[in-house]
Amino acid sequence: MKLLYSRDEMVRLAVEALKSRGVEVDDIAEIAYNQQAKYTKNIGFDTCRDSVIKVLSLRDIFHHVLLAVQLDKMAEKKMFEGPIQDIIEQDLGLFGVDEVLGLDVARLYGVIGMTNFGDIDVNKPGIVKHLNDEGKKEGIVHTFLDDIVGAIAAAASTRVAQVINEELAQQLPHEKISLFDE
Amino acid sequence: MKLLYSRDEMVRLAVEALKSRGVEVDDIAEIAYNQQAKYTKNIGFDTCRDSVIKVLSLRDIFHHVLLAVQLDKMAEKKMFEGPIQDIIEQDLGLFGVDEVLGLDVARLYGVIGMTNFGDIDVNKPGIVKHLNDEGKKEGIVHTFLDDIVGAIAAAASTRVAQVINEELAQQLPHEKISLFDE
Amino acid sequence: MKLLYSRDEMVRLAVEALKSRGVEVDDIAEIAYNQQAKYTKNIGFDTCRDSVIKVLSLRDIFHHVLLAVQLDKMAEKKMFEGPIQDIIEQDLGLFGVDEVLGLDVARLYGVIGMTNFGDIDVNKPGIVKHLNDEGKKEGIVHTFLDDIVGAIAAAASTRVAQVINEELAQQLPHEKISLFDE
Amino acid sequence: MKLLYSRDEMVRLAVEALKSRGVEVDDIAEIAYNQQAKYTKNIGFDTCRDSVIKVLSLRDIFHHVLLAVQLDKMAEKKMFEGPIQDIIEQDLGLFGVDEVLGLDVARLYGVIGMTNFGDIDVNKPGIVKHLNDEGKKEGIVHTFLDDIVGAIAAAASTRVAQVINEELAQQLPHEKISLFDE
Repeated sequence: MKLLYSRDEMVRLAVEALKSRGVEVDDIAEIAYNQQAKYTKNIGFDTCRDSVIKVLSLRDIFHHVLLAVQLDKMAEKKMFEGPIQDIIEQDLGLFGVDEVLGLDVARLYGVIGMTNFGDIDVNKPGIVKHLNDEGKKEGIVHTFLDDIVGAIAAAASTRVAQVINEELAQQLPHEKISLFDE
Repeated sequence: MKLLYSRDEMVRLAVEALKSRGVEVDDIAEIAYNQQAKYTKNIGFDTCRDSVIKVLSLRDIFHHVLLAVQLDKMAEKKMFEGPIQDIIEQDLGLFGVDEVLGLDVARLYGVIGMTNFGDIDVNKPGIVKHLNDEGKKEGIVHTFLDDIVGAIAAAASTRVAQVINEELAQQLPHEKISLFDE
Repeated sequence: MKLLYSRDEMVRLAVEALKSRGVEVDDIAEIAYNQQAKYTKNIGFDTCRDSVIKVLSLRDIFHHVLLAVQLDKMAEKKMFEGPIQDIIEQDLGLFGVDEVLGLDVARLYGVIGMTNFGDIDVNKPGIVKHLNDEGKKEGIVHTFLDDIVGAIAAAASTRVAQVINEELAQQLPHEKISLFDE
Repeated sequence: MKLLYSRDEMVRLAVEALKSRGVEVDDIAEIAYNQQAKYTKNIGFDTCRDSVIKVLSLRDIFHHVLLAVQLDKMAEKKMFEGPIQDIIEQDLGLFGVDEVLGLDVARLYGVIGMTNFGDIDVNKPGIVKHLNDEGKKEGIVHTFLDDIVGAIAAAASTRVAQVINEELAQQLPHEKISLFDE
């Protein structure tokens, strides 16, 4: 039984799962790009796309993507029993578990990741708004996915800032100005 | 379509869902009791049971209980598609979403709630150990529920401490020494 | 020795501390107002001001306000020894403790509180921008306070939404649609 | 003005700061060792010591150590003005900022780091108990440091588990079973 996947497999499976729900890597990269462009000129879009891919290769985030896609699909097929089916299907505002999972994705990139997620979750740019709107239609559920996608964008955005900081701090030997130095 | 439930309904539905998976309110109260007994003599077991019921009446926690029970049941029936089915069914140690959801339950009672959850999650007393052991058997999945149950115990334990603090601080008029004064 | 303060005392001391650093309750209420106005028409400014006061009466937040004001003052007087003095005084971007404390304030109002804080922390409206700009001047430090103020605004904003939800859900007897029902 | 320190400098400064308050690296390694020994036989103490050093080399944790040591020292010298001086000096149970900062250290190692911190914070092994007891004496304050030290132990403990997982999963090419794969 296969439980552990290699980095390449995790990226492939995550990208596939997102595609199956109408989300492309570039949709996510675009949100990251626009968020970082507030702070830095001349960010390459490629840098943002690379960061999305890097983020999708983390095991925690791979797990979140697969789970969110499954939960939305199962809600579309009305597979939950009891009160939770309608609560998820209707994306009840007072149901916060989807945001908790999004915040967990963003948390992997520290407090900055979490505040970036807050910005995206409140203002709903690009693909996040699209998923949110689509999810209001009969038969379509994106209750969990719009938060995961927004969080991946926030994580990628934060990672781009870290990469830029590293380039700026090259005077320190063997130093990466990253919150996750190992 | 009913999305919002009254406090009494939420308690009733949560208790039913827990019972359907072999968990009684007193199992949870017992963990809370043992945790608080480290700090205070003469805690009444009834105080702990009342705190569990109060905790189960919070909408966030009601949502978590229903969701966790559904996720475990659906994994038992192999209803997830793709890699996430085995990952959940086998309670992969590197799959952390269950603990994230437990931590979210505990978070409602502040940082103390979260550290109390950590204590229970690491040391696995009573019903938490039982669920964890049962979940290793073929056909039984408690991947999500053992964390939610441990977290409810932590929340109830924290609430008992708050109630005791209130009784001690009666010299302050109209004052409740609670993190959630409103 | 006085360690526990009544609700009225906590509000008074917190408001005084904020005033001593140039922050008025209405400055904070304005941010909450603007954030909620994105979702709801006809919010009363008074409702927002009341929510700020309610938020300031919580012990956790009272502690955060007093601590943040002291830390900034002590940094202005260069009272920290060693590397941390300059790190705080210059509001180093890679120093994240101030945001951690802000997130803790917002956390008291759940995941929604945290995402609202993210929005304010990234976009820096009103008094938050003002504190951030002032803090760049020689001799002035607002490293900790701008995050606490932004978080109080986020908390108040979230509370306003809860109050509005309650009014909408009056059909449920004795029910408050609040994440912190007790 | 020096704001950014190299990894070696950060370790040196953090170890010095801890020593100045009576805490040795081995005191922290011992807690990590005992926590992991519950799960795995034959853990080397050296592995635990190395993990403590690795943890101390992260910028976020370096900042936390320096800040905690300064805050306790300043409280010992009664440098805070107003109510917060006594609240910190007496380590008021209802003052939770110290635990929030500890949880932030542990958070860098994911949800497992946070639950490990909960275990240490509740059960207070070794040097954590010692700091907690010393802090009760007149003229000594360890309000912030005991939580930071416990959190570093939790982080190191979690890192040891990650290192062990990596050795077990060597069949996956170029794969590190780490929550923080980059």
